[in-house]
Amino acid sequence: MRITIIGSGNVATHLAAAFKNGGHRIVQVYSREIQNAALLAYHVKAEAIDRLQDIDPETDLFVIAVKDDAIFSLGLSLAPYKKLTVHTSGATALTVLSSIMPNSGVLYPLQTLSKNKEVDFLNVPLCIEGPDEQTTRILEQLAQTISNKVYRINSAQRKVLHLAAVFACNFPNYLYEVARRLLDKQNIDFELIRPLILETAQKVQENLPVEVQTGPAVRNDENTMKMHLQMLQDEPGLQMIYELLSQGIIKNTKDGH
Amino acid sequence: MRITIIGSGNVATHLAAAFKNGGHRIVQVYSREIQNAALLAYHVKAEAIDRLQDIDPETDLFVIAVKDDAIFSLGLSLAPYKKLTVHTSGATALTVLSSIMPNSGVLYPLQTLSKNKEVDFLNVPLCIEGPDEQTTRILEQLAQTISNKVYRINSAQRKVLHLAAVFACNFPNYLYEVARRLLDKQNIDFELIRPLILETAQKVQENLPVEVQTGPAVRNDENTMKMHLQMLQDEPGLQMIYELLSQGIIKNTKDGH
Repeated sequence: MRITIIGSGNVATHLAAAFKNGGHRIVQVYSREIQNAALLAYHVKAEAIDRLQDIDPETDLFVIAVKDDAIFSLGLSLAPYKKLTVHTSGATALTVLSSIMPNSGVLYPLQTLSKNKEVDFLNVPLCIEGPDEQTTRILEQLAQTISNKVYRINSAQRKVLHLAAVFACNFPNYLYEVARRLLDKQNIDFELIRPLILETAQKVQENLPVEVQTGPAVRNDENTMKMHLQMLQDEPGLQMIYELLSQGIIKNTKDGH
Repeated sequence: MRITIIGSGNVATHLAAAFKNGGHRIVQVYSREIQNAALLAYHVKAEAIDRLQDIDPETDLFVIAVKDDAIFSLGLSLAPYKKLTVHTSGATALTVLSSIMPNSGVLYPLQTLSKNKEVDFLNVPLCIEGPDEQTTRILEQLAQTISNKVYRINSAQRKVLHLAAVFACNFPNYLYEVARRLLDKQNIDFELIRPLILETAQKVQENLPVEVQTGPAVRNDENTMKMHLQMLQDEPGLQMIYELLSQGIIKNTKDGH
């Protein structure tokens, strides 16, 4: 397929590379910042553009990988080309595109993607949605050229998946940063705690999280929790996080989940 | 060394196995519940006991791996044997033992250990502390027989490490469980989100967490955050967690960390 990438952020970068590796041709990369477009375009041997009027109509697929609130207006600009057009957002319904063009879909990679971190895209779960069976099948076949984990997920499910991903990825990553800062204040190297972070994630690859919960809260070890709250007395925000998450663990344990 | 294990929980189980694999002999396993002592003793070919008066004095090391608030009284019971005695707690100072016996120390495995999940103990960071250089060296050499990652960590540092571990492990694991529950309500398999959890942890093995933060909060994507809070309207506890952690990410981003 001839593919045009709209956007140059984390998702655009990884999807463009995955399509390229999957044997497709990236025609153009569009970004409002020509430097950003140029950098990604260079990596995938495409043309960089920063004006929508420069779009090459000779393409088979537009991939809109931009901030959620820019999807609709870009969709309006691309609709006249009458090409298959997908967005890549977890939080945005298919109807945002399908209401303005017949030939649209969603291709949502359920993975944390950073430009500076390579990822094995074949193992990235790809959630697809189309407006009808025919388009869904086209998207499915396309998705299977870049990932071995393709799922049909409707807009309502995708919204929940995206929310769950915030809890399973964005928030844990923030808590890693909190841990790093606490250690840093005592000149303890973050390296010491990296194996713990990895093992915590590896444990739930085979088990359910509730089965492998450890720590003071699941033991209802009140003395330790009290001591931890005291240690955080200069950080009221962290105290509240500590208290809320501990209460959640205690409640889960009591409920016998 | 001849080693006596006091306790039969997660840490006792993994340490006993590690010592056994490291070429040591486990003499006895003590637990208040004889079934628990017997199960662990069977695996490490030791004698199971549930009464302190049955302790075999022919041992070189007592490893106290029990709840924090039981360490002191067990220490009192073991002091008369005048053997090297260590506890394994992150949150407990060395002085809890060293104030009642001359020959004591700490051997704190900085890892999440569950009985039902094997772990490569050679990669588990072991934090050791002794009351003097001589004992510390003995502990260091002992620790190196079961782990390649041995660190000298004093009681004040260990307390902070333990607090950081709660943020880096126990809380993320709880958030995985929250994600699982959100998905479960929509009949979406937890399997879909497992690669995301693993990749999130793998990313910070090479990078600092703040460098690889993704999600709506770091983009300050207010519409998505508002929508997520609405989706959580029946779960006020989760709403508060969502709000607090998002605010933390936004603040981190602004501070330019």
